[in-house]
Amino acid sequence: MTTRKDCLTRDSQDALAPLRAQFDLPPELIYLDGNSLGARPRAALARAQDVIAREWGQDLIRSWNTAGWFDLPKRLGDRLAPLIGAGAGEVVVTDSTSVNLFKALAAALHMQAADPARGERRVLVTERSNFPTDIYMAQGLSGWLQRGYRVRLVDSPAELEAAIDADSAVVMLTHVNYRTGYQHDMAALSAHAHAQGALIVWDLAHSAGAVPLDLHRDGADLAVGCTYKYLNGGPGAPAFIWVPRRHQAAFRQPLSGWWGHAAPFAMAPDFAPADGIGRALCGTQPIASLAMVECGLDIFAQTDMAAIRAKSLALTDLFIELVEARCGAHPLELVTPRQHARRGSQVSFTHPHGYAVMQALIARGVVGDYREPAIMRFGFTPLYTRYADVWDAVDILRDILDGQAYDIDAARDAVT
Amino acid sequence: MTTRKDCLTRDSQDALAPLRAQFDLPPELIYLDGNSLGARPRAALARAQDVIAREWGQDLIRSWNTAGWFDLPKRLGDRLAPLIGAGAGEVVVTDSTSVNLFKALAAALHMQAADPARGERRVLVTERSNFPTDIYMAQGLSGWLQRGYRVRLVDSPAELEAAIDADSAVVMLTHVNYRTGYQHDMAALSAHAHAQGALIVWDLAHSAGAVPLDLHRDGADLAVGCTYKYLNGGPGAPAFIWVPRRHQAAFRQPLSGWWGHAAPFAMAPDFAPADGIGRALCGTQPIASLAMVECGLDIFAQTDMAAIRAKSLALTDLFIELVEARCGAHPLELVTPRQHARRGSQVSFTHPHGYAVMQALIARGVVGDYREPAIMRFGFTPLYTRYADVWDAVDILRDILDGQAYDIDAARDAVT
Repeated sequence: MTTRKDCLTRDSQDALAPLRAQFDLPPELIYLDGNSLGARPRAALARAQDVIAREWGQDLIRSWNTAGWFDLPKRLGDRLAPLIGAGAGEVVVTDSTSVNLFKALAAALHMQAADPARGERRVLVTERSNFPTDIYMAQGLSGWLQRGYRVRLVDSPAELEAAIDADSAVVMLTHVNYRTGYQHDMAALSAHAHAQGALIVWDLAHSAGAVPLDLHRDGADLAVGCTYKYLNGGPGAPAFIWVPRRHQAAFRQPLSGWWGHAAPFAMAPDFAPADGIGRALCGTQPIASLAMVECGLDIFAQTDMAAIRAKSLALTDLFIELVEARCGAHPLELVTPRQHARRGSQVSFTHPHGYAVMQALIARGVVGDYREPAIMRFGFTPLYTRYADVWDAVDILRDILDGQAYDIDAARDAVT
Repeated sequence: MTTRKDCLTRDSQDALAPLRAQFDLPPELIYLDGNSLGARPRAALARAQDVIAREWGQDLIRSWNTAGWFDLPKRLGDRLAPLIGAGAGEVVVTDSTSVNLFKALAAALHMQAADPARGERRVLVTERSNFPTDIYMAQGLSGWLQRGYRVRLVDSPAELEAAIDADSAVVMLTHVNYRTGYQHDMAALSAHAHAQGALIVWDLAHSAGAVPLDLHRDGADLAVGCTYKYLNGGPGAPAFIWVPRRHQAAFRQPLSGWWGHAAPFAMAPDFAPADGIGRALCGTQPIASLAMVECGLDIFAQTDMAAIRAKSLALTDLFIELVEARCGAHPLELVTPRQHARRGSQVSFTHPHGYAVMQALIARGVVGDYREPAIMRFGFTPLYTRYADVWDAVDILRDILDGQAYDIDAARDAVT
């Protein structure tokens, strides 16, 4: 079995190890929740101070031009693009993931409705286990369009292909499941959707910065994602939306605000969408939060997704190995796929007292999180997680389980 | 005529004068653009540093609970409420003004469609001179609902009442016009809309923190507004939406994300709107930008809107008096109403070379802005603008005009 000494050796040989110094992490913490809120790049504080003190405080309104505030969504989108296999001018960082998903779904339904061969399709296919806001946004959109659209909730990945059929207008899937860490086969599902005449929208919330992505190669039609998880953009940092060049001319979305206008400062009384990715924008963006997104992207620019993926799989393999070897006496069940191709960058185990065990772990400095039902979720972020952290986290988990050192009546926080 | 000495005397007697010290303003600047981007409260830098370094960097994911991030939209909404005559639990600070307007318009159309007596109304009334994004969002929404809604653009305030008729479902007006500074009579227009069976949605972008508001008394149905202008929340800071308690049960909007769910962490697969104002929320908010909104509200809490309005009118009266007295030889035309009740907190003059004159003013340290066609816009923000600033600004304007010291071929910035 792997020992702690082995882990230290692997850390000493890890080419990504030096990047950890670019994050501000509390020394006493083993942070395995970067899949929920990424750690803080050290540079983010200075960047925010500059935005607030100089760009806002001193240069004031002029910063829309001189500091490039107005172009920030596109500039950051271009910097994010290589991480997801997108081209320049195909991504903007803006709004929330939910709002961007609304735009993407609306645009995809619009493209389908405009196609004489496909205009009568009325089903939006997604998974019951998708992150709830994705389902809610689809319900919100389809309910309001009043053309009789409905949302089909599929119960398991195995049933997906059969559920995508000649009635399907749009398939909307989250690439890596937030609870289980299950990673869909993007290429196969995109090809199947297209063969059935459907368009496919991917939510990359748990994929961007976590697993290699090649949206063009894998046939995605549209995509959205999050910058505050694996991309370390800061709490609630604006999300992103990808519209490939081949779909930009047909891309129409109802949140047609002035930032998406062809000439926003002409102040014309009719909306005319901007050429290119700009039409995915809506209103004015929160500049301080937006600017910090660049600090996370700066760190990704020092490595590549292949190196990150290799370490991610090594970390999650190690965690699974150690939990099963050292905590095998306890009722833990692995819900994350063992198969690498089907695994994201997290590992989830169920335990009958999952919530209480997670609270005990957090109290001991091992921060993962809990998701209903009974799932303890551990995120592994190769930019700042060490092999020794994995060993230590399992050691503390074993100690808690062996000693039953958790409070099964613990009151639950509103946000867990 | 008022002299500079008179202005200094008024500054020395001004009860609001001490509040200026709470803003970080470049000493060499006369900043008359707080109607576009408010100045920086000094406290905002320390607040952001604490959010970034401690709440994000050290407490990480726990800050959703311990730092109250999840409740921030409601907590800030409650602090903003008194400035607009709203009650507790009626306002959230979230998303952009454009996105919030989309929610408000959708909700108002939904309320009308659900009413058997009014369900056949298909017209959304607004002004051609409204801020473009408001018109674009109305066009986007009405175009997508596919129930035959259309947007009626009214050419002048005088024609508004006649344009609101038995076909009108919803009237949407910006209370203070961004170009002219014209302030609508909210009570009269709301009463007229109701008499015609329409609902009325108010955009308070140029009103909140600028003029006294009493949404309940004046009969507004829904409202949205901006925090980065007169409220000094920071560049692109999240906007707000007001839903009075009387409309909350009927309020439905299509951007039904998880933050608007009755139980966001139950992760249920069907959307159920939260009780109360929470249903106006959608997705995760940009915490660093959001948190700074409180620093502006902290300054408003030290005074009241009556005092702010009295000084605002004194400043705008003084500016009009001095421009007309000292620059009377030049082709300047006042487009802002002289009547106090119809004036916001800005003064706009046209000049045939308005853009060039404004660039010359900015180069001399007097920062206003320019809006097509030919309008020079000067915003007056009583929390940090001095009477002597008004005198000095007019003095520099006169100097520029008398000397024709402006370049009529000046290249235009993308954002002006």
